[in-house]
Amino acid sequence: MKNRITIWNEFRHEKENETVRLIYPNGIHEAIAAGIAPRGDFEIRTATLDEPEHGLTEEILDSTDVLLWWGHMAHPEVEDEIVERVHQAVLSGMGLIALHSAHASKIFVRLMGTNCSLKWREAGERERLWNVAPGHPIMEGIGQYFEVEPAEMYGERFDIPEPDELIMISWFAGGEVFRSACTWQRGNGRVFYFRPGHETYPVYHDENVLRVVANGCKWTRRRISKTTFEFPRTDPIESL
Amino acid sequence: MKNRITIWNEFRHEKENETVRLIYPNGIHEAIAAGIAPRGDFEIRTATLDEPEHGLTEEILDSTDVLLWWGHMAHPEVEDEIVERVHQAVLSGMGLIALHSAHASKIFVRLMGTNCSLKWREAGERERLWNVAPGHPIMEGIGQYFEVEPAEMYGERFDIPEPDELIMISWFAGGEVFRSACTWQRGNGRVFYFRPGHETYPVYHDENVLRVVANGCKWTRRRISKTTFEFPRTDPIESL
Amino acid sequence: MKNRITIWNEFRHEKENETVRLIYPNGIHEAIAAGIAPRGDFEIRTATLDEPEHGLTEEILDSTDVLLWWGHMAHPEVEDEIVERVHQAVLSGMGLIALHSAHASKIFVRLMGTNCSLKWREAGERERLWNVAPGHPIMEGIGQYFEVEPAEMYGERFDIPEPDELIMISWFAGGEVFRSACTWQRGNGRVFYFRPGHETYPVYHDENVLRVVANGCKWTRRRISKTTFEFPRTDPIESL
Amino acid sequence: MKNRITIWNEFRHEKENETVRLIYPNGIHEAIAAGIAPRGDFEIRTATLDEPEHGLTEEILDSTDVLLWWGHMAHPEVEDEIVERVHQAVLSGMGLIALHSAHASKIFVRLMGTNCSLKWREAGERERLWNVAPGHPIMEGIGQYFEVEPAEMYGERFDIPEPDELIMISWFAGGEVFRSACTWQRGNGRVFYFRPGHETYPVYHDENVLRVVANGCKWTRRRISKTTFEFPRTDPIESL
Repeated sequence: MKNRITIWNEFRHEKENETVRLIYPNGIHEAIAAGIAPRGDFEIRTATLDEPEHGLTEEILDSTDVLLWWGHMAHPEVEDEIVERVHQAVLSGMGLIALHSAHASKIFVRLMGTNCSLKWREAGERERLWNVAPGHPIMEGIGQYFEVEPAEMYGERFDIPEPDELIMISWFAGGEVFRSACTWQRGNGRVFYFRPGHETYPVYHDENVLRVVANGCKWTRRRISKTTFEFPRTDPIESL
Repeated sequence: MKNRITIWNEFRHEKENETVRLIYPNGIHEAIAAGIAPRGDFEIRTATLDEPEHGLTEEILDSTDVLLWWGHMAHPEVEDEIVERVHQAVLSGMGLIALHSAHASKIFVRLMGTNCSLKWREAGERERLWNVAPGHPIMEGIGQYFEVEPAEMYGERFDIPEPDELIMISWFAGGEVFRSACTWQRGNGRVFYFRPGHETYPVYHDENVLRVVANGCKWTRRRISKTTFEFPRTDPIESL
Repeated sequence: MKNRITIWNEFRHEKENETVRLIYPNGIHEAIAAGIAPRGDFEIRTATLDEPEHGLTEEILDSTDVLLWWGHMAHPEVEDEIVERVHQAVLSGMGLIALHSAHASKIFVRLMGTNCSLKWREAGERERLWNVAPGHPIMEGIGQYFEVEPAEMYGERFDIPEPDELIMISWFAGGEVFRSACTWQRGNGRVFYFRPGHETYPVYHDENVLRVVANGCKWTRRRISKTTFEFPRTDPIESL
Repeated sequence: MKNRITIWNEFRHEKENETVRLIYPNGIHEAIAAGIAPRGDFEIRTATLDEPEHGLTEEILDSTDVLLWWGHMAHPEVEDEIVERVHQAVLSGMGLIALHSAHASKIFVRLMGTNCSLKWREAGERERLWNVAPGHPIMEGIGQYFEVEPAEMYGERFDIPEPDELIMISWFAGGEVFRSACTWQRGNGRVFYFRPGHETYPVYHDENVLRVVANGCKWTRRRISKTTFEFPRTDPIESL
């Protein structure tokens, strides 16, 4: 069965900024869609902030195995009701991949239970991502490291819960480090945070980045659809 | 320096139910306060739902090293603004101990990022809590197991993130099991969930239960006071 | 590509004990092989203690994706050289499933770095295994719990490192609990411990048990073949 | 009660190499002892490879709360019987701090169950250690980062089990990163690996390094003395 992917993008920078539009003429979501399509048995849809219900109706989420999330300037505009809906979808089994500035998105912050804060710098520097989990399915086809340049810098301390699995650590030319690829299980769903990606750099045209995103889609894929929002009174199994 | 403890209780069952009042005449918070006082170098205060700001002003939280939370019937009445305040206090370094039905409190659910659901049954059965982390400071003075009877049953699956440390697992006479003592680091603070405790059973007069709660107060104690709610742009340390 | 499974059994109880032989006439390894064969795209071989090199030559291990291990009375007879070979195979990417009394096998103890001790009792009692990770691939097709009866009891404290993932917790009629399905990543390989199974009980004819073992074979499957036994001196990537 | 520290050093480089002797005239063990003594309520002893039983008799280990381990060129000379003794001491509750090249010591490798391999380079470069767990007791008094220069480089992938707590990540001028401060629970004991330290660089005269080592001594301190090397048959608690 195909892996049903929904790529969500706030899709605002691309409309307002010529630089961004040149790099991602159809939006970051379409660049990612085109980049991962040949890398797996995916059925890909997109959704954006300005669609009704941000494009994330119950029907869409119920038929989504993995939701990718890219947001930045418009995090506060995402309706709390939709965030709650996405949250419950993840806890019921849908995978979520939070990309780059989605570290501060409402949905990622809510899933983590922390502020997800970090240091940052936009200086076009070199980033080298080291593979610290070569046996992990998300690292399939990735060597000891790869580089992204120019890259926006994200630096520690990243205020996240200790990841279940730490997969990549970034080195930045300016002197910082960052936990750039991390996974967590939440409810019945899998969450993957992946750092690379910036609206004014062509990061989502990079082969290694696209490979990791595609691998992430396979790894976070929904395995089950079962709400965790039930608190049943239950009879004893053994006689009391 | 003394360990400054604030015990929070919604304090409603005790006012409305004669059975509860007989067991906890001054409220669950006062029973816990009396029970842990001789077990550590504690400075203990209490706070309750019906006080202004639920008794949890900025000043109180800033001078609290560990906050204990007991709530049940009135979870929805806790103001979101106060929840946010407590949340940030934990992320800044304050410890939090969530007791029994606090699994469904707004603050615990927010810190976990999951629904924290479970099965339950009020049948006065026997619970046996097994110590699976005998080297952990929270288990100081606790043997291989202890029993609580009568106990309300809480059964798996408990919808929590995989604990950083699983400390006790409960066996119930009716046939269920439960992860009854669990810890997580969130931001700069430590969170401890401890299952025992029920308004109509005298659980907070039990020596073992009180010992674990007191040990938990020592372990979750604030180590630092430093917000994680900052996202600073930062200059490179190395020349670019 | 098929998942290449090697089922290792010390194969001694079956030769010495009539009761065991009646339950597992061709050995526990053949019972497991027959039980999992229809449940996945497996290529199954077996190996036993009394074969040359215990049936675990370099060639066999290099062409094994998952090694299952059943041992009990003859743990000390396994040659250290073979244990080292299996250990390096796991660290290079081969999966390992340690079954039941393999908790005390040389290879499992070495991978864990702890004593892997536990309490036990052979009283034919009821075991109920609770699913605490319903979204995990190893729990595919498993409900909230299943029962095994008669079961040998294994009780906490189980001296293992905190599992990366705790998947099932057992309840025993005699009053104990146990972490019965646990996973760990070691090097490039995955390790899965699964408790059920005993030589004098027909546990490896149980549908649920076989399903979990088969799922475990899929989950621990080798993803990579890359030794971790190299300590290279390396030139700087950046100019110093 | 004082925290009883035993600092173990193979003490060979200092005898054979003039450069090392100039930096550590009385040996690395004495430099560490002098450096941490004022930073805690410690009772400090030392032990070295060439003493009978490597200075690690049963009596010494039984009265040691934390054992620090520094070894490099003589790892293979440590007797397996002593390694087994230290291993059981840790599992029974003694803390262990593995320093720098002790990543490849027999005792650390045995506790981890992995090869503990890494990349390395001796080029006197700059290392910057980032604090990713500011609320952890081992980071008490440590800011966002500190630098060590000159430093030997250790680079990922470090073949260790996922740490229970990742505390510091190193950035190296040459382009690598490393998980430099990590903790694990094993049996009843705590294990702390801390990367800095090299025989030809004066790293153990550095204030920050010594502070972390001293904090580590407090954190890994023995809490309990209880073997995990027992497999008792046990009667049922509940009637069967």
